[in-house]
Amino acid sequence: PVDPGADATIGGMSATRASGTNAVRYGTMRENVLSLTVVLADGRIINTASRARKSAAGYDLTHLYVGSEGTLGVITEIRLRLYGVPETITAAVCAFPTVENAVSTVIEIIQSAIPIARAELLDDVSMAAINRYAKLDHKEVPTLFFEFHGTPTSVAEQVENVKAIAAEYGGHEFKWASRPEDRNKLWKARHDAYYATLQLNPGFSGLSTDVCVPISRLAEVIYQTRMECDASQLECAILGHVGDGNFHTLILFDPGSEDQIAEARRLHDNMVERALAADGTCTGEHGIGIGKIKFLEQEMGEGVSVMRALKTALDPDNLFNPGKIFRE
Amino acid sequence: PVDPGADATIGGMSATRASGTNAVRYGTMRENVLSLTVVLADGRIINTASRARKSAAGYDLTHLYVGSEGTLGVITEIRLRLYGVPETITAAVCAFPTVENAVSTVIEIIQSAIPIARAELLDDVSMAAINRYAKLDHKEVPTLFFEFHGTPTSVAEQVENVKAIAAEYGGHEFKWASRPEDRNKLWKARHDAYYATLQLNPGFSGLSTDVCVPISRLAEVIYQTRMECDASQLECAILGHVGDGNFHTLILFDPGSEDQIAEARRLHDNMVERALAADGTCTGEHGIGIGKIKFLEQEMGEGVSVMRALKTALDPDNLFNPGKIFRE
Repeated sequence: PVDPGADATIGGMSATRASGTNAVRYGTMRENVLSLTVVLADGRIINTASRARKSAAGYDLTHLYVGSEGTLGVITEIRLRLYGVPETITAAVCAFPTVENAVSTVIEIIQSAIPIARAELLDDVSMAAINRYAKLDHKEVPTLFFEFHGTPTSVAEQVENVKAIAAEYGGHEFKWASRPEDRNKLWKARHDAYYATLQLNPGFSGLSTDVCVPISRLAEVIYQTRMECDASQLECAILGHVGDGNFHTLILFDPGSEDQIAEARRLHDNMVERALAADGTCTGEHGIGIGKIKFLEQEMGEGVSVMRALKTALDPDNLFNPGKIFRE
Repeated sequence: PVDPGADATIGGMSATRASGTNAVRYGTMRENVLSLTVVLADGRIINTASRARKSAAGYDLTHLYVGSEGTLGVITEIRLRLYGVPETITAAVCAFPTVENAVSTVIEIIQSAIPIARAELLDDVSMAAINRYAKLDHKEVPTLFFEFHGTPTSVAEQVENVKAIAAEYGGHEFKWASRPEDRNKLWKARHDAYYATLQLNPGFSGLSTDVCVPISRLAEVIYQTRMECDASQLECAILGHVGDGNFHTLILFDPGSEDQIAEARRLHDNMVERALAADGTCTGEHGIGIGKIKFLEQEMGEGVSVMRALKTALDPDNLFNPGKIFRE
């Protein structure tokens, strides 16, 4: 059984709780880590940066350790950037005829410099799953979930502008909510997506994929993924942090069936290959672990030897999380 | 003679053109570098990242090379994040009774989550210099320069909110401009500050300092700096990227006078010591070079040995910019 609360590895592939949502306006978590305290291989302890917001004092150690999957040292303290709570927060959902239309809407919003806080895509399978799971009555079509932050005036303007752009791409059933309880209800559907999708086939396991592509390639890559999933015997739900070009497919399979495990793996590997062919990455946020070592090599080429040199320099005895990121 | 167009080193200290302005809204340049092409010490060429906006594929090589001062490899290509041109851009200047009041205004703006694009501080000496240089009639008191980006509605609201906060801190003479030619005129004063300050003492050289402190400590550190400059025989102008906690002091000195060179160095070193005592950094954007090697050691402690291990791993024969960042 796969623990949905943590990254796990089944059959050499990463199975991960895919319910994180990403803040388009506030950058990725990586950009919000200001400094770290790290225990080195020889037991010494360093701080990676001062408390200044900006620095040019030598190499950027903070971002070397962020995302290093525990292979370079033990992180014992993290200092994060904080943001003020916005005066107004409004959530919205909007239904679309196709995934491409939904993605095009987000691209145009970003190109128009509308400072949306969040934009999340759920495809028709995901929407059907959350309707069934939480007894909701959303249309079972590709749907965008938005969040807007700012002053009342600015948020009202953002909502109007987004509505206008969505309408150009056939967006309809635009629902929005400002009161916290209504917003939470709207977003709860999104947050339930992982469990809701698993419930489509009780007893099945879910394999989550995690590719990220240039936003300009996102619509075509999601479309190809949806086509391949539809042609497979396995049920697959797609959800995406579309503002980042990052999306996940939750592939449901019978963990007792060798055929289904092989089919899940085939779908997963094809998704990664498509992402790499589109100048994307094999992992947007879940990491390399064991299962994606071969794809890291494919994606980064000689860059992997640079990474390995860094690993050897900082952990010469291979004490930290051995076997991850690099082939032994 | 110091070339104001590039980083240079006089007497072991960094003298730099200090006319960069920083985008509060868009992050630092570091945050806007998406990937690099780098030639390694053995001649191999790597790309540090795919074209995806976000990735968890191994170590963050991009940010290891950004700010490495040419010591880890030769960067031959840079891919930057682009932003849409905002529908409306408005510039503003506002005069304050003290530097502390000006800094407190910026802190409250940031805490209020008003998405200003730029906020720059010039002290009374800098303002007197630009008045004389460009025949302007600004009040010769600490002054903030702002830029606002967004829709007409959002920019109007930002301007009103900033005006209200500035007024609480005694801000007056609030002037603003939206037409490009008027905006450029307003900002030109800021961009001229380096040359204008040099003109206060024709024939003198300018030594630029470059500390960055937590924003909560900025007002006191600038105040102490101003006091020490006032007590010195040398003329000093302060200007700051206050949204970042980063400020520069341009110290004017006679390059033919050993006494003045020593006094400039004393002022510089005291500024760095004050920044470090305030949990800040010895360099916000200019880098370590040769002159700040000892301060890097003071700031980063054991962290320097980690940096040195990275240098040795990637440039074992010390081919790249030897003698910089680290003591030989």
